[in-house]
Amino acid sequence: MSKFRVDSFTISLDGYGAGADQSLENPLGVGGNTLHEWALATRTFRTMFGQEGGTTDIDDEFAARGFRNIGAWIMGRNMFGPIRGDWPDDVWKGWWGDNPVYHCPVFVLTHYPRPAIVMEGGTTFHFVTDGIHAALKCATEAAAGKDIRVGGGVSTIQQYLHAGLIDEMHLAISPVLLGSGEHFFAGIDLPKLGFRRSEHVITPNATHVVLTK
Amino acid sequence: MSKFRVDSFTISLDGYGAGADQSLENPLGVGGNTLHEWALATRTFRTMFGQEGGTTDIDDEFAARGFRNIGAWIMGRNMFGPIRGDWPDDVWKGWWGDNPVYHCPVFVLTHYPRPAIVMEGGTTFHFVTDGIHAALKCATEAAAGKDIRVGGGVSTIQQYLHAGLIDEMHLAISPVLLGSGEHFFAGIDLPKLGFRRSEHVITPNATHVVLTK
Repeated sequence: MSKFRVDSFTISLDGYGAGADQSLENPLGVGGNTLHEWALATRTFRTMFGQEGGTTDIDDEFAARGFRNIGAWIMGRNMFGPIRGDWPDDVWKGWWGDNPVYHCPVFVLTHYPRPAIVMEGGTTFHFVTDGIHAALKCATEAAAGKDIRVGGGVSTIQQYLHAGLIDEMHLAISPVLLGSGEHFFAGIDLPKLGFRRSEHVITPNATHVVLTK
Repeated sequence: MSKFRVDSFTISLDGYGAGADQSLENPLGVGGNTLHEWALATRTFRTMFGQEGGTTDIDDEFAARGFRNIGAWIMGRNMFGPIRGDWPDDVWKGWWGDNPVYHCPVFVLTHYPRPAIVMEGGTTFHFVTDGIHAALKCATEAAAGKDIRVGGGVSTIQQYLHAGLIDEMHLAISPVLLGSGEHFFAGIDLPKLGFRRSEHVITPNATHVVLTK
């Protein structure tokens, strides 16, 4: 049966999943890039961005497994881009260039309709305006038995957690302080939602925790 | 110059410094004991409680340094005991038996006056009713040039952080989820308060982070 997963979602020591003040220059908010140093150093991520080398150890294994057996993605509108409100035109096509890293259907939660965008390499961005349950239904159909990964951001994951829909989460805690931004654990009682820690692996770059139900 | 320090303050993966519902049976709140497994396993803590053996590695080094060069402690009233409101009598003398682990003056923040309690082994509990600044002034005098350690709980440390008075913090993150309780980072912007990460050491039992100004 297909699972609804969070993978490689990275938070700071003080629990923030992104910095404050997202913009075109700071897709992850101010200071948010430092969160992802563990991932960006891996062979998996370097290969994805056309670079050579990279770490091949535990961090890389966690980065890689986040892309295995994924048939569809879901993301919040702020993960897709810095534009708020109605779409001014069709120019913005995500942060990831002509050939995005997803290579499968991606369902973007938004209140503003927009036609789907077919990208190179198998990624199609679909814009879902009727809520998280509808997005998950579409994604499940598109995934055809494979897993669905929710990318983020914090608010999107929290909504799916509150709805009891997420089966498994891999969180990476980076050894940085952000101080402000979107707090991942705010109002989220993971044990009460039925999660228990099933893996705990540490590297010099991150503390990896896998939570399952 | 004497420093005002936090040492071995332990939080869960989801940022809680104690469980919910503190009571005589659960001094650290429900589930709070699991937080401290890294510390309780160390030789330092086992020796302190009259037990043999214990780990002698990084966890133990962090546990031990929290007791080095400390001339006085400060703690909140809830760390001292489960009683709320006025003191009903003089029976309660802390969680730590006749010979507490402090071996120096301990200043307990409370709104309810009570005479000092002289314990065995050099510990005296003083009850300070005129606020955090007064407690720190008393502790600094008592410490006579040594450092002052603030034990907790979350609320006490947060008050001193907001007042800009803490010089150094060692936090230990335990690989457990608490889900609810007192959130350590709530409303605390550590970078804004001038802290930077000066050490980051991981063990199978805890992620240790030292923050200095």
